[in-house]
This record gives sequence, C-alpha cells and structure tokens, in this order.
Amino acid sequence: MSADSLAEYEKVAVSAAKSAGAVIREAFVKKKTVEHKGSVDLVTETDKQCEALISSALREAFPDHSFIGEEESSAAGSTAALTDAPTWMVDPLDGTTNFVHQYPFVCVSIGLAIEQKLVLGVVFNPILNELFTAVQGRGAFLNGQQIHASSTAELGNALLATEIGTTRDPQTVAAIFDRISALTGCMRSVRCSGSCALNLCSVACGRLDAFYEIGFGGCWDVAAGALVLQEAGGTVLDPAGGQFGVMARRVLGTNAHLGDAVAKVLAGCKVSPHEAQAP
Amino acid sequence: MSADSLAEYEKVAVSAAKSAGAVIREAFVKKKTVEHKGSVDLVTETDKQCEALISSALREAFPDHSFIGEEESSAAGSTAALTDAPTWMVDPLDGTTNFVHQYPFVCVSIGLAIEQKLVLGVVFNPILNELFTAVQGRGAFLNGQQIHASSTAELGNALLATEIGTTRDPQTVAAIFDRISALTGCMRSVRCSGSCALNLCSVACGRLDAFYEIGFGGCWDVAAGALVLQEAGGTVLDPAGGQFGVMARRVLGTNAHLGDAVAKVLAGCKVSPHEAQAP
Repeated sequence: MSADSLAEYEKVAVSAAKSAGAVIREAFVKKKTVEHKGSVDLVTETDKQCEALISSALREAFPDHSFIGEEESSAAGSTAALTDAPTWMVDPLDGTTNFVHQYPFVCVSIGLAIEQKLVLGVVFNPILNELFTAVQGRGAFLNGQQIHASSTAELGNALLATEIGTTRDPQTVAAIFDRISALTGCMRSVRCSGSCALNLCSVACGRLDAFYEIGFGGCWDVAAGALVLQEAGGTVLDPAGGQFGVMARRVLGTNAHLGDAVAKVLAGCKVSPHEAQAP
Repeated sequence: MSADSLAEYEKVAVSAAKSAGAVIREAFVKKKTVEHKGSVDLVTETDKQCEALISSALREAFPDHSFIGEEESSAAGSTAALTDAPTWMVDPLDGTTNFVHQYPFVCVSIGLAIEQKLVLGVVFNPILNELFTAVQGRGAFLNGQQIHASSTAELGNALLATEIGTTRDPQTVAAIFDRISALTGCMRSVRCSGSCALNLCSVACGRLDAFYEIGFGGCWDVAAGALVLQEAGGTVLDPAGGQFGVMARRVLGTNAHLGDAVAKVLAGCKVSPHEAQAP
C-alpha cells in the first residue's frame, strides 16, 4: 500500500469516527433501550446505528475491503476469520455499559489490518473529545499532538488497568481476581474504566503504565488501540508473554519497559477453561 | 446557622476549590516530585501547596472554625477529633496517584460539618472542569445544574465502583478482593477511578449506582462527596448497613434503592483485622 492510500484510509476512518461520535454524544444523556447479549453484556440502538453508519462509510469508500464489526458479528453468532485482504475492525461503541450509565469512558474504535498486520488505528471519545490516531510507522497522536508511552521502569511505581469483563462463571471470575490480586501485590494501583480501547490509548499517552484483559469481545476491541500503543512506543503482547494476536481476545499492553514483568506475574496465576487461551 | 452564613461558606469554599484547581491543572501535565506516605500512598508538592492555599482562605474568612486537612493530619501523624465547632474537612488533591500519572480523575474536596453534621460539600475536578456542590437541604448540583442519583432498583442492573486502596497487607488485600468478587457476582460491572470523592459524586449524578470503600485516608475523602450524594437523593451508609460516620473511614454510597442490598452482600464477606471496623 502507498503512503497516499494510508492517508486516505485515515481520513475516511476519522470522518466516520467523528460522525458516529456525534450520534453517541447526542444519545449519551438520553434514556436508552438496553438489550442483553449476555447476563451483563449490553447493546443499545446507538451501538447498531453507529456500526451501520461506519460500515456504510467504509464500504462505500473501499468496496473491496473486508469488514468485521462487533454488532454484525454478534448478529451472525460468529466472527469472520482474518484474511490477507484489507480488513476493518470496528467497535462502534466501546464501553456500552458506561454509555448506558453515562460514565464518560466511551469511544468509537476503528482499526485496519492489511495482510493481517495492523496499519491504522482511530479511537475517538466523543464525551471527553479525545481523538487518538496512529498510522503504522508514523507515530501516535492525541488530538493531533504526538503522544508517548510512559517511562516507568519499576513495577512498584506502575499504574495498571484491567477489566472484570462480562463472563460470570465462577472459574473465570476466580481467575480474574487471582490475576488482579497478584498484580495489586506488586504494582501501585489498579483502574477499571470499562473500555478496552481507551485503556490501550491511556497506556499510549502515559496515563497508565500497563493494561491487560483476557476474554473480551473480539478484535474490534483492540485493533485500533493496539496500533496506537505500538506507535506511541509501547509494547503489545499476549498476556502469557508471547506474540500478540489481534484475533485472540487476549491483550497485554504496556510501556516499553514493563511487558515482560507483567507477563511473568500473569504466568503464575490461575487460568479458567472458559477463557480465551494462550495461542 | 443562617441561610446567609451557609451561602457565604459555600462562596468561600467554591472560590478556594477553584484556586486550588487552577494550581492542579497547571501542574497536571508537568513532571512531579513524588514522596511516599506508605508503600503506594503518594504525596506531591501540589497536594501541600493546595492545602496551604485552601487552609489560608478558610482560616482567614472563618478564623473561629476548625480545620482538618489531609496533609496537616498526615504531618501530625493523627487526625484531630471532630467537635461540635464548624469544621472544614479538606482533601486538597483527592486522587494523588491519578495526578502523578495524569489520569484525569483528580479533585479538590471541601466539606463542612457543624455540630458534627455535614452541611456543605464542594468537589471540583479541574481537569474535566466539573464542579459538584451541595448545601444541606438545598439539593446537589454539577456546574450549576441540579443532579439526581439513578433510579436503578435491581442489583443486577447496577454499576458499582470501589477502590483497591493503599493498604497492602495480605489479609486486607484478601478482604478487598473477597468483597469485589462477591459484588461482581450480582452486579453489572465494577469501576475503579482512583478518587473516593469523585466516586461519591458519580453516584450523585447517576453515572454509578453504588460505591463503597473501607479504610481510606480520612474524613477529607468523604465529607463533601457524602453530602453531595445525600442532597442528590442518594443514601450514605456504613458498609455494614448502619449509620454513616464521617470519621469512620468507611463508606457505602448508593442511589435511594440499593443501599441495603449492597450492605447485605458486604456483610457476608471477609473482614481484615487491619481495616477500619464497623462502629
């Protein structure tokens, strides 16, 4: 792909993210009709409306590209396999629970992989008006200003984020708390914002030093944020310490210094048979 | 006290909160010199500078009032006992860890108790520019707009916040995770923002349905937020379900519906001998 086409992809993705963001902002303070995808996994009309909007914009601009969206995948009951074709990975509203409760960590997340490699990431929080963007090899930006992951080199000085997720079987809940508890024992503190994409972007701009989550919804949650973090000088790994796979529903994102140290702690923790497993 | 004097107290407190907020906002993006009060309990020059600024403003305006500030108490090694005198309870920078990491949940918290009863609360987040205010009997406000706690009546539909805190002995950490785990099993999800005062205000404006924390620093963390929540129609209890005590370092704040249900779950959980105990 040429630099020109990447710039065009970014322009269309940012425009689609801002259009969807405007819809989210307007709906944010209103009463929502909430459907359940699982016991605590929610979806609203706004999720669906925003995915339709983004999907139309991308498919119209790039008719030969593939598209994996959270709501289409959910309706189909499965996620399409990743091919070498240019593939957009879209979460139209990451942080739906926050959206329902008006907790201000919500975003649109749009990633693009070509030949199975992430090349573009756009994450837009329309409530705090923060737009994170990254193109492969060209750095990461927040509202146009270049951002960098933190320089924290000691685990004891590091701020971690993770999420409880939406799985509630006892083995998975036990594994989740075993991991958080182990990391709490050696890190400064823990934050749970409720948005996987924004957690990755928060590591990218140095607000957090590390984030991991196992068993989130799909590639749409991490594709954009993972590239933003990589382009900010951070490290994106599988939580077991190996290579990150965008389809694996497992991510560990840290600054340049802490990836191995966090992975080492996680390796000593419980594993649930119901969670996405290390590849 | 007269309505006039309460209005005057509020005016001075808001002015002091905004002055301290301006200092926090300016320092937020700069490199900080961090001291440790405990293994993960931090303090910066900005905490001290803001407390001096607020303390001066309040002592000058109300020379016969008492003052309990986080940093003065920390320097003295103990917290003054609460008397019937008008007593200001001030956290000059709640969310110091967030401040150090530039995570945007930081605030100034100024509460006033008269005859041991909370009558005024001012909580200002200078990064998100959100000012929460409440005067006893007159409602709660966010940037001048009246706010109300949520109407969520089912625990399973409720969003909870809590914090990991700064105590790291194994019994306390086990008790903390036993509680979060039990509540995760029956609530929608969990958020950890890193600011006790802002968590209470988030319940007050309906972004969260419930928040509890046991063993936080002192009355300065909760005095203002507890009144904001009460005036927003919420409930403030001891986590064991009894009466809330502002000096007890224990709080459960919910909307009008969920207090007893959350307290009942907490009553079935582990207790650490190192935590603040139910009165």
